[in-house]
Amino acid sequence: MLGSTHGTLTSGLRARVVACGDDARSASVHGTTAAATRAPGAAAPVAADVAASGAGTATAADLDVSGRPLYAPVPDLDRFFRPESVAVVGASDAEGRPNTGITRQLLAWAERVGARLHPVHPTREAVFGLPCVPSVADLPEQVDLAVLLVKDPLPLVDQLADAKVRFAVAFASGFAETGEDGAAAQARLAAAVAATDSGLRLLGPNTNLNAFEEFREDLDGPAIALITQSGHQGRPVFSLQQLGVRLSHWAPTGNEADLETADFISYFSQLPEVGAIAAYIEGLKDGRSFLLAADRAARNGVPVVAVKVGRTETGARTAASHTGKLTGADDVVDAAMRQFGVIRVDGLDELQDTAALLARARKPRADGVVVYSISGGTGAHFADLATAAGLELPTLSDAKQAELHEWIPEYLNVANPVDNGGHPVGDWRGRKIIDAILADPSVGVLICPITGPFPPMSDKLAQDLADAAEATDKLVCVVWGSPVGTEAAYRETLLGSSRLATFRTFGNCITAVRAYLDHHRFTASYRSPFDEAPRTPSPSFRKAQALMRPGQQLSEHAAKQLLRAYGIRVPREQLVTSAAAAVRSAAQVGYPVVMKASGPQLAHKTELGLVKVGLTSASQVRDAYRELTDIAAYENIPLDGILVCQMVARGVEMVVGAGRDALFGPTVTVGLGGVLVEVLGDAAVRVPPFGEPDARAMLGELRGHALLEGVRGAPPADVDALVEVILRVQRMALELGDDLSELDINPLMVLPRGQGAVALDALAVCR
Amino acid sequence: MLGSTHGTLTSGLRARVVACGDDARSASVHGTTAAATRAPGAAAPVAADVAASGAGTATAADLDVSGRPLYAPVPDLDRFFRPESVAVVGASDAEGRPNTGITRQLLAWAERVGARLHPVHPTREAVFGLPCVPSVADLPEQVDLAVLLVKDPLPLVDQLADAKVRFAVAFASGFAETGEDGAAAQARLAAAVAATDSGLRLLGPNTNLNAFEEFREDLDGPAIALITQSGHQGRPVFSLQQLGVRLSHWAPTGNEADLETADFISYFSQLPEVGAIAAYIEGLKDGRSFLLAADRAARNGVPVVAVKVGRTETGARTAASHTGKLTGADDVVDAAMRQFGVIRVDGLDELQDTAALLARARKPRADGVVVYSISGGTGAHFADLATAAGLELPTLSDAKQAELHEWIPEYLNVANPVDNGGHPVGDWRGRKIIDAILADPSVGVLICPITGPFPPMSDKLAQDLADAAEATDKLVCVVWGSPVGTEAAYRETLLGSSRLATFRTFGNCITAVRAYLDHHRFTASYRSPFDEAPRTPSPSFRKAQALMRPGQQLSEHAAKQLLRAYGIRVPREQLVTSAAAAVRSAAQVGYPVVMKASGPQLAHKTELGLVKVGLTSASQVRDAYRELTDIAAYENIPLDGILVCQMVARGVEMVVGAGRDALFGPTVTVGLGGVLVEVLGDAAVRVPPFGEPDARAMLGELRGHALLEGVRGAPPADVDALVEVILRVQRMALELGDDLSELDINPLMVLPRGQGAVALDALAVCR
Repeated sequence: MLGSTHGTLTSGLRARVVACGDDARSASVHGTTAAATRAPGAAAPVAADVAASGAGTATAADLDVSGRPLYAPVPDLDRFFRPESVAVVGASDAEGRPNTGITRQLLAWAERVGARLHPVHPTREAVFGLPCVPSVADLPEQVDLAVLLVKDPLPLVDQLADAKVRFAVAFASGFAETGEDGAAAQARLAAAVAATDSGLRLLGPNTNLNAFEEFREDLDGPAIALITQSGHQGRPVFSLQQLGVRLSHWAPTGNEADLETADFISYFSQLPEVGAIAAYIEGLKDGRSFLLAADRAARNGVPVVAVKVGRTETGARTAASHTGKLTGADDVVDAAMRQFGVIRVDGLDELQDTAALLARARKPRADGVVVYSISGGTGAHFADLATAAGLELPTLSDAKQAELHEWIPEYLNVANPVDNGGHPVGDWRGRKIIDAILADPSVGVLICPITGPFPPMSDKLAQDLADAAEATDKLVCVVWGSPVGTEAAYRETLLGSSRLATFRTFGNCITAVRAYLDHHRFTASYRSPFDEAPRTPSPSFRKAQALMRPGQQLSEHAAKQLLRAYGIRVPREQLVTSAAAAVRSAAQVGYPVVMKASGPQLAHKTELGLVKVGLTSASQVRDAYRELTDIAAYENIPLDGILVCQMVARGVEMVVGAGRDALFGPTVTVGLGGVLVEVLGDAAVRVPPFGEPDARAMLGELRGHALLEGVRGAPPADVDALVEVILRVQRMALELGDDLSELDINPLMVLPRGQGAVALDALAVCR
Repeated sequence: MLGSTHGTLTSGLRARVVACGDDARSASVHGTTAAATRAPGAAAPVAADVAASGAGTATAADLDVSGRPLYAPVPDLDRFFRPESVAVVGASDAEGRPNTGITRQLLAWAERVGARLHPVHPTREAVFGLPCVPSVADLPEQVDLAVLLVKDPLPLVDQLADAKVRFAVAFASGFAETGEDGAAAQARLAAAVAATDSGLRLLGPNTNLNAFEEFREDLDGPAIALITQSGHQGRPVFSLQQLGVRLSHWAPTGNEADLETADFISYFSQLPEVGAIAAYIEGLKDGRSFLLAADRAARNGVPVVAVKVGRTETGARTAASHTGKLTGADDVVDAAMRQFGVIRVDGLDELQDTAALLARARKPRADGVVVYSISGGTGAHFADLATAAGLELPTLSDAKQAELHEWIPEYLNVANPVDNGGHPVGDWRGRKIIDAILADPSVGVLICPITGPFPPMSDKLAQDLADAAEATDKLVCVVWGSPVGTEAAYRETLLGSSRLATFRTFGNCITAVRAYLDHHRFTASYRSPFDEAPRTPSPSFRKAQALMRPGQQLSEHAAKQLLRAYGIRVPREQLVTSAAAAVRSAAQVGYPVVMKASGPQLAHKTELGLVKVGLTSASQVRDAYRELTDIAAYENIPLDGILVCQMVARGVEMVVGAGRDALFGPTVTVGLGGVLVEVLGDAAVRVPPFGEPDARAMLGELRGHALLEGVRGAPPADVDALVEVILRVQRMALELGDDLSELDINPLMVLPRGQGAVALDALAVCR
């Protein structure tokens, strides 16, 4: 069967807390794999505690202030991937039955790996010569794994639990991928598995045998562990074995009724043989569990490369209508992946090339990339694209250039890119040049694009590169640019070396090298935001609660009080209900003042003429009061009064807001303010929890970020104050998240450096 | 020899007019190839005239108002590519000499194509058994082509001209690619060739034998003609022959001392066997000749796909330092290519895949793309990426879906993407489904991504697709996603079909299909801007000339008079030199007024406090006059007076300007005004000549273009007036171009629809 569309049922966010309990419970049964970290000292204390105590349920300490888990145990899947005994429920050897083919494949696999196979069938006595038992209850031993080839796995769940079967794989399709009825059946299946107390874990439904395919044993070095929701889409990555790239596991997660992508990421990220995790994801079952898994991989320094379908609304719509899966808004997915170091790529070819490189390359010794070629044109072209993609091509030192000119004619440029003109690769000089480049301390990566094969040169060059790669711990990449791909230099010399990274296109090489350098930069400075996430409400929380009005949009005045409760500065202002009071307030606030209508359903005040700025006298204030109340009366807008506000000096107008993503929960957004955020959509988003460096990085992602540095003589803005507001809004999003459906500060006036930031207007909608 | 770096000497813009004369001259000698257009009626009248008259020199009618050519003759290169007789100057058969290898290759080639070869060597009597003559003058016949294997080709030029040799290929390196001395030598060579009156044309120097490689004769259908400045970089495209893609020509242009990329584009675009032109360009020799060649290809409906190195400054620097070549600012290159329909790609793999598709696919019958797959995951993933890239995936009609469900299970989605679930491809249903999709009138392209080979299904599917492609005139694309690439279904079935377009990655398939649909949309509506380019100065020109001050920056007032001369609206304003005059002027201009300091070196007036807005009374005007003159005196800024200007209503602030690109000459830019153009660099550029549709298209390229449509209740802006200003600035750039080094209208206030656009400030710098 070809893996096809898959449907995951999404547990709600509150439900997820329960799921966390489940995980912890199952961990107590299976024994949780210790959170073995590769970078000593990077282990999360909480994770270590839980693992050590084997606590049966999640405690309050495992939850952040929003009630979301701060920790997810690593499921022990050793016996899933390497079962010693397997039951095949619905086994068959009758010619022409689909189950017969699958049974045959399992038999071959069992023979290969030395596992014991037990056919289960209500009427057969034997299958392919193996004795057959009528039911799971009759199995001769406690099996590690049951492969369920039956149409409806639900009735089997309790039997499997009673028989203490550890893992089940459900092949049946017809669940969430087919529509509402299927989704309901899947929910029943998931609930049944969760209700067992034996620790049974289920893969699927709508999955297949990919986990038990033939893995090449003759390849060594770190491997790719593969996770795919579709068997067909995983095949090209698995096929990398034929090109000499080692694969260690393949988890075809199907509809993810129980075991999900996140479980496999967590598990793979602590296996010594895994160099990189490659994932093909159509929809994520749960945002938080994915982030916790990505966090574990980041702590362990294991790169995760992922295709995540859903770049476009059409894609998302397709995915939703096909699979009943929840696709988060793509910007949020993108941001969340970036926050936790997941390398997102678009094509399966990029997934292959990037994962293969990351799995096998050692830690970079330097960030510098040298491009070495037998053609100046090739070098210039590659350097152009590499630089555009953000790779750093250092100019080689004069001494190094002089050394290279011992073998390369003087008139050729060897500054980087290094152009050897062709001839030196044909003799003893070829290897000397490569070794000399690799010996340079500024060089972490040597890339040799060979666009056209020219055997007298390219065969020798390929061999020299393969030999040099064996002798160095630096990364050596080759691009074999011939579209033919049957050349011996490519098939044998280049693909034959597990130390070389071989590509077919400039683009994929650049993408992979960029990901490699980014990954190591990321993990070197990674600090898990879960370690520092708030667990208990801040003192602001109680004050804020008193201001909330369930189901309502707060008035501007109330929304600003909410901000003030969280220490976000708002202008001096007073809410008045008479012209005389307005004049008194203006004197207290200080002229000039701004006056605005304030009411619970007010938005777009400026367009309605409900804002008056720059009022400098009592008579102007009186006139403004009359005009504002007249307009509101005319437009039939209920007011709670008129705000008389301090007029704040000019700064940079920004927007900071909190939203809710269906997949990840609360989000925090910052953007350019005013008309521009609408027209340009220039905004950056993050998924809590995130720390101060991430808040600062958001500003760098804005196309208009130079505005904050001061343009046309304007002073630099108080970026520190802006960052502080972002972090306080994050706190609000976490603490009030479930009661607050929307929060926008628009504009936040960011004053010159040292002078702070003031929320001039705010919109808050209570749930 | 491997093609390496190449150096083109750039003729200046004025020099180019002379070069045009040269082209026309050489055309009169060689006989100009008629501008055979495939789309009848699209031929340029001017081109036809010149070709018919065989005019010896370019006439005024061939030049636009800026003195640039509106027409370039097509060189007749038939005898270059298919010479009947060839002289090899410097021929050798001595073992170990580089020339021996080249002579041997030429011998083999001559034998293959039936050409007569004449070795030339001062001392040898025979070379490889062929009689050898001591010099070009001693050749036994007038040869079509001389291959120059000598170190310095310069002394040969006159001999070649005397011997009426039509074409020469200069192999020698050591010219512009090596630095200043080489560049000077190359200039001498180019001048010598230009000075001959025999019509001699030269390819190179620093080139090779690529034009005379072995082209497969067994492939039919339209071919790719290839132009590369580097032999090594052209090799992968040439190798496409091994995958069944027909190549007709390869022009390795080297340093382009005489023949350049543009000449080959023009020539190839009128050959019936050429389906697409693929070009690898490191630097363009002359912007205008490239545009004229691209224009000819566009008129003829022949797609040009190009890699143009220089995306980044580093790349450009590398190219410049390596080759002495002029790399135009990349945005301008990008815009110019887009204007004339040249499809720019980044990688050689994209060049191959896009050119191969465009060469072979027929005109699309519809723009709709259907994605058909054996896996719902594959379909959703492909559809996601395709939609993100701008392809249109129409939802199939209910009737068509019902038809597809005759063969595809009901629960699978067949709306588009069409998911067949796998099994139907294995039997008679497979072909039925493909034919049914292709029969749909909304469908122009069928794409079938096969990510993982699964022979029972994919072999049959590949065969069905190949068969269906033979039977339809619609485009059928297949992505063979396996990284292995040795499978028979790929090598034999898919690559064996010249009607199928086969790709290895989703990305390249999408890029190529997008280019295919774009190309046909472009050529269907293409009108050459050269036909409508102004040839004689407008009446504005004389008025404008009187205002120019060579070497100076004009005062704001003078710059605005320049705009007014070209019919661009400026505010009512008067230049005054006393406070009393200011008050009188304000009354005439009408309150409120704006007052600004005006002087020849003034820029950044606002930052200096030299602008006062919203003045409503005589006393305010008097005060402002005093303040402005005081500031200017304090800052030591010479003024020609104070401008008293009408205060213009609010609109959308834009910038429109004219610049000069080193490669293409005048350019016209439009962008968002105010601080934003600086911070966001949100601008669009065009190279004249361009028409009104292009001026309008520029606005669509702005990220902030929605501002012109009216946001937050603002009225839509007068886009027609803005377009008119862009076209008038183009006219200024063309007429004044050589005298005007910079022109900026900043801001241009675009008023609400129907109310026009007013240049509030202008900067003009005379050359």
